[in-house]
Amino acid sequence: MGVNSNNRVEHFVCNNGSTIKIQTDIQMPPPLEIHKVRLPPERTTLQKLRQRLSEIFFPDDPLHMFKNQTWLMKLLLALQYLFPIFQWAPHYNLSLLRSDIISGLTIASLAIPQGISYAKLANLPPIIGLYSSFVPPLIYSLLGSSRHIGVGPVSIASLVMGSMLSETVSYTQDPILYLKLAFTATFFAGLFQASLGILRLGFVIDFLSKATLVGFMAGAAIIVSLQQLKGLLGIVHFTSKMQIIPVLVSVFKQRDEWSWQTVVVGFTFLAFLLITRHISLKKPKLFWVSAAAPLTSVILSTILVFILRNKTHEIAIIGELPKGLNPPSSNMLYLNGPYLALAIKTGLVTGILSLTEGIAVGRTFATLKNYQVDGNKEMMAIGIMNIAGSCSSCYVTSGSFSRSAVNYNAGAQTAVSNIIMASAVLVTLLFLMPLFYYTPNVVLGAIIITAVVGLIDYQAAYKLWKVDKLDFLACLCSFFGVLFISVPLGLGIAVAISVFKILLHVSRPNTLVLGNIPGTPIFHNLNQYREALRISSFIILAVESPIYFANSTYLQERILRWIREEEERIKANIESTLKCIILDMTAVTAIDTSGIDALCELRKVLDKRSLQLVLANPVGNVMEKLHQSNILDSFGLKGVYLTVGEAVADISSSWKAQP
Amino acid sequence: MGVNSNNRVEHFVCNNGSTIKIQTDIQMPPPLEIHKVRLPPERTTLQKLRQRLSEIFFPDDPLHMFKNQTWLMKLLLALQYLFPIFQWAPHYNLSLLRSDIISGLTIASLAIPQGISYAKLANLPPIIGLYSSFVPPLIYSLLGSSRHIGVGPVSIASLVMGSMLSETVSYTQDPILYLKLAFTATFFAGLFQASLGILRLGFVIDFLSKATLVGFMAGAAIIVSLQQLKGLLGIVHFTSKMQIIPVLVSVFKQRDEWSWQTVVVGFTFLAFLLITRHISLKKPKLFWVSAAAPLTSVILSTILVFILRNKTHEIAIIGELPKGLNPPSSNMLYLNGPYLALAIKTGLVTGILSLTEGIAVGRTFATLKNYQVDGNKEMMAIGIMNIAGSCSSCYVTSGSFSRSAVNYNAGAQTAVSNIIMASAVLVTLLFLMPLFYYTPNVVLGAIIITAVVGLIDYQAAYKLWKVDKLDFLACLCSFFGVLFISVPLGLGIAVAISVFKILLHVSRPNTLVLGNIPGTPIFHNLNQYREALRISSFIILAVESPIYFANSTYLQERILRWIREEEERIKANIESTLKCIILDMTAVTAIDTSGIDALCELRKVLDKRSLQLVLANPVGNVMEKLHQSNILDSFGLKGVYLTVGEAVADISSSWKAQP
Repeated sequence: MGVNSNNRVEHFVCNNGSTIKIQTDIQMPPPLEIHKVRLPPERTTLQKLRQRLSEIFFPDDPLHMFKNQTWLMKLLLALQYLFPIFQWAPHYNLSLLRSDIISGLTIASLAIPQGISYAKLANLPPIIGLYSSFVPPLIYSLLGSSRHIGVGPVSIASLVMGSMLSETVSYTQDPILYLKLAFTATFFAGLFQASLGILRLGFVIDFLSKATLVGFMAGAAIIVSLQQLKGLLGIVHFTSKMQIIPVLVSVFKQRDEWSWQTVVVGFTFLAFLLITRHISLKKPKLFWVSAAAPLTSVILSTILVFILRNKTHEIAIIGELPKGLNPPSSNMLYLNGPYLALAIKTGLVTGILSLTEGIAVGRTFATLKNYQVDGNKEMMAIGIMNIAGSCSSCYVTSGSFSRSAVNYNAGAQTAVSNIIMASAVLVTLLFLMPLFYYTPNVVLGAIIITAVVGLIDYQAAYKLWKVDKLDFLACLCSFFGVLFISVPLGLGIAVAISVFKILLHVSRPNTLVLGNIPGTPIFHNLNQYREALRISSFIILAVESPIYFANSTYLQERILRWIREEEERIKANIESTLKCIILDMTAVTAIDTSGIDALCELRKVLDKRSLQLVLANPVGNVMEKLHQSNILDSFGLKGVYLTVGEAVADISSSWKAQP
Repeated sequence: MGVNSNNRVEHFVCNNGSTIKIQTDIQMPPPLEIHKVRLPPERTTLQKLRQRLSEIFFPDDPLHMFKNQTWLMKLLLALQYLFPIFQWAPHYNLSLLRSDIISGLTIASLAIPQGISYAKLANLPPIIGLYSSFVPPLIYSLLGSSRHIGVGPVSIASLVMGSMLSETVSYTQDPILYLKLAFTATFFAGLFQASLGILRLGFVIDFLSKATLVGFMAGAAIIVSLQQLKGLLGIVHFTSKMQIIPVLVSVFKQRDEWSWQTVVVGFTFLAFLLITRHISLKKPKLFWVSAAAPLTSVILSTILVFILRNKTHEIAIIGELPKGLNPPSSNMLYLNGPYLALAIKTGLVTGILSLTEGIAVGRTFATLKNYQVDGNKEMMAIGIMNIAGSCSSCYVTSGSFSRSAVNYNAGAQTAVSNIIMASAVLVTLLFLMPLFYYTPNVVLGAIIITAVVGLIDYQAAYKLWKVDKLDFLACLCSFFGVLFISVPLGLGIAVAISVFKILLHVSRPNTLVLGNIPGTPIFHNLNQYREALRISSFIILAVESPIYFANSTYLQERILRWIREEEERIKANIESTLKCIILDMTAVTAIDTSGIDALCELRKVLDKRSLQLVLANPVGNVMEKLHQSNILDSFGLKGVYLTVGEAVADISSSWKAQP
């Protein structure tokens, strides 16, 4: 039978000297019937366009629940779709309310100090942070579909807004303009978020990959923490820059401004907060320890400063805060003038960042409790909440990681916990504001640091390193970009690297040589499957990517190189000559006109060298394109097979027939 | 056997009421042995990095010819590699020389009038066009690996250089500065081209897809032709803008400046040139008709104007041209000052455009004659030729389509035809310049129009429409972008659309439901193969894309939708319940950390619904990543199969074993 003694005994392949014997028909599984490769059912351009568009914009088929319903039911469903509150409100009961009150009060105790602190991070008056913890949660509870999100200001978006706006406008010299720009940026953030939802372009935020976010968050957390050194050390003259180097230079240059009173108070409370955080991390049941710690710190430090008020002039305090509800601010929107572009840009960046956090939070807790959160609907909810917020003295808000986790752990059942929280903030706004007069700023700094420390996820970074080096690189780049260049630019670099990674994968796709796994009709990567065997006179190549303009030249050259190397190998081993190249097109999920031209050209080049080119298993739309461009005819009847196995069997038997 | 009478008789699937009978073991091809999915052989990070980098930068394995050679041979090969002239010079003979002299003289007769015309297109003195047809061809003949390229100025790059530079600097008011910037842009174009070649980043030009180039070229051809109306109509005060609207407005506003003498001469010669072009297109053997026509037109029109020189003052003529060889111009490089950025930008854009044309021309003719052109080497050759050109009073040159086609048709055998052409230009520069004194500008306009008309490839555009609508859209956008906005911006739009197309494909990949093709272990798209059958209790989904951060959320939701729809279908048909989801990962050629997380989450969600998730045929590097991230363990022994067929057989038999 001419079995090559170098190989284990196998059907198929063998060579001895110059005669070739191929035995596909003996052990080749069932009596071989050659299947024709089908074209997909014909559709008009319009049908194809429609299907493509619905796949792009409505992959979740949002209208499926309206099918086969009465008109009244459709109306009710539409109402429930737009206002998820109608879904759960009818089933609401006292036991749910009890859970929601507990969790609502718990997050309120966190939200009040965080609101004040984050507003300072955005260089805004502290009261804005409280306003932002009142209106947006109410609106979200009407529109949002997540049951566990805790809505309010978030650290990253606050930081970015603060850094972007104060690069151009000084918040000390022109506080009114600064405030106006903050509301305007919030307005555009909301507009942008809502439009993404309405236009169903939610996939835009997918381009912030987890890898880049890990790096970005860690960098931002460090930037935020360093900024707090101003408050923690009691420095008065601090740099307005955000990068790590000027901040550190500023810290050490103003050593003479460091105030020991502030340092002692600050680091004491920082230690207290970090310890409570550590306790809650170790024992998730004790989540309330870290949840209550910020408010406790605020109360304790306020009492302390109040008692020692004659001896602690060095410690900066919040001072007078206006009592009363959110004043309207729609008259403060800055829609015309030289800073409009800045406001829009800031709105876009903070909008996309807060959206990313909000959606991720919603999805995380939905998965834990096994319910679905509709990304596009969430975007609309968050967007409308920010638009409304911008007209009621709020700045950018979203679902925050830390608050939502506390909400979830405290047993929140529905969005009512947000309403409870808002009510608590309402009481605070109406009656408790004077109590914050003596609250020291340094405690706010400690609260911020404790909140952002959790954003440094070194374990995730280590996992990235272990699993995917290129992802890790993207992570590093966004980390250092944020630290050393700027927050928005760091984000830009991160996105650029992610996109570059995709493009690199497309422009330099893998090509593999396949071999037969003995005793089966399965063909697999020779490198991965040591038992797989080459088939003499054939080389079987798999292309692992769509064939596009971006890789058509590369693939053509790479395939020719595989053939050259195979011919060299054959020459060295004195095997029988190469006659046929089979391209396994299973993973070629698309082809464009450049790709078709490349295939055509490859066929011509190989033809001139008397080598046969055969395609195996082209998928539906590739078949369609090959057919439309008439190159199927040039491949002929024996040019396209359904599987590699059938191609090998049929071609080698045809060689036998005509020796 | 419980065969469902709705289906044709098949093994595998059947349902009747509530009991399920699955018969895979009877007709399922050979006695089933379950193959383990292997991990690819282990490699260190460094090895992987090395392989990846060599695949990115050295896919053609340029050093393979140096393997197993003596030192002397290696030296000779290196010399031949750097200077391809050493490859063919030893075999050069008289018969080759004869062919090269004929083709060299033919392209010289085309190159001289084209050189003068294209220089005017770039708003440069005509003599620069001749200089550029002398030095660069000589350098290319030493370094280039294409045997058929005709080197010299090219229309698109000339147009782009003219439009980009004259937007900022006036070529009439400040001709010296303009000339300096042109040389500097040429220098940077060369530097950029050579660096692409040396750094092996040639794939950058692949991002100019054929589709966008078709649109871009057609738009540019129209812009160029409209610009020639100035000369053809004899208008003196013409707009300096390039867009179609201001140019047409300008043409009709200056109707009083139209000169009938110019119009008559211009359109006569235009008609003559277009007719000769038509003849050569119809009968490729008569290529010399169109090749000789420009020079004939120049000679005839010059004689005509000379004879009637007292009566044709309206017709603008070239006038005095300096005699002599290229003067050195390295002292004119503008490397410091406010316009440097403009020069660099112009250099980059013209560099990439001329490179694209040069490489495409080289590849086209190499394929026709079945030899290889090394892209990276060509880039180096074209780059060095432009750097040298910028120091010897030349502007951007490349291999031009029209001239190379004439060269090929005239029988050029080696780069010697370029040397012959350069010699003919040399003779012209030294002795014949005064003859051009009376050449009318209007003839140059006619020559340009005839040359660029061929760039409007409406057949290619029609083919794009037929085969790929999205490609056609990219083509249209770049066409209208060039016409209505600007040439560089049109190019930018075109590239952006191409990249967007790739990203869209990645972020919204296809998912298919597979069915079994009766009598085989083959599973295929149910939609494409009508004979394929669903298998009861299973849904088999194929994901047609790598799983990335950009599509992981989408895929997760899309897969859940498939399952929901399948469950609804099952409910409607009262079939047996769904128990197992098989993901065919054959086309999932890569996965990143977000993708792994998505798979994990999907598994958890399905677990909660008591559905089993199984992966079939994960490729090498996907297996590796799954292994590294420890999720393979969570899938367990029965979670990953080599083929869909084995998965179905094994899982359904395990159900049978434990009813």
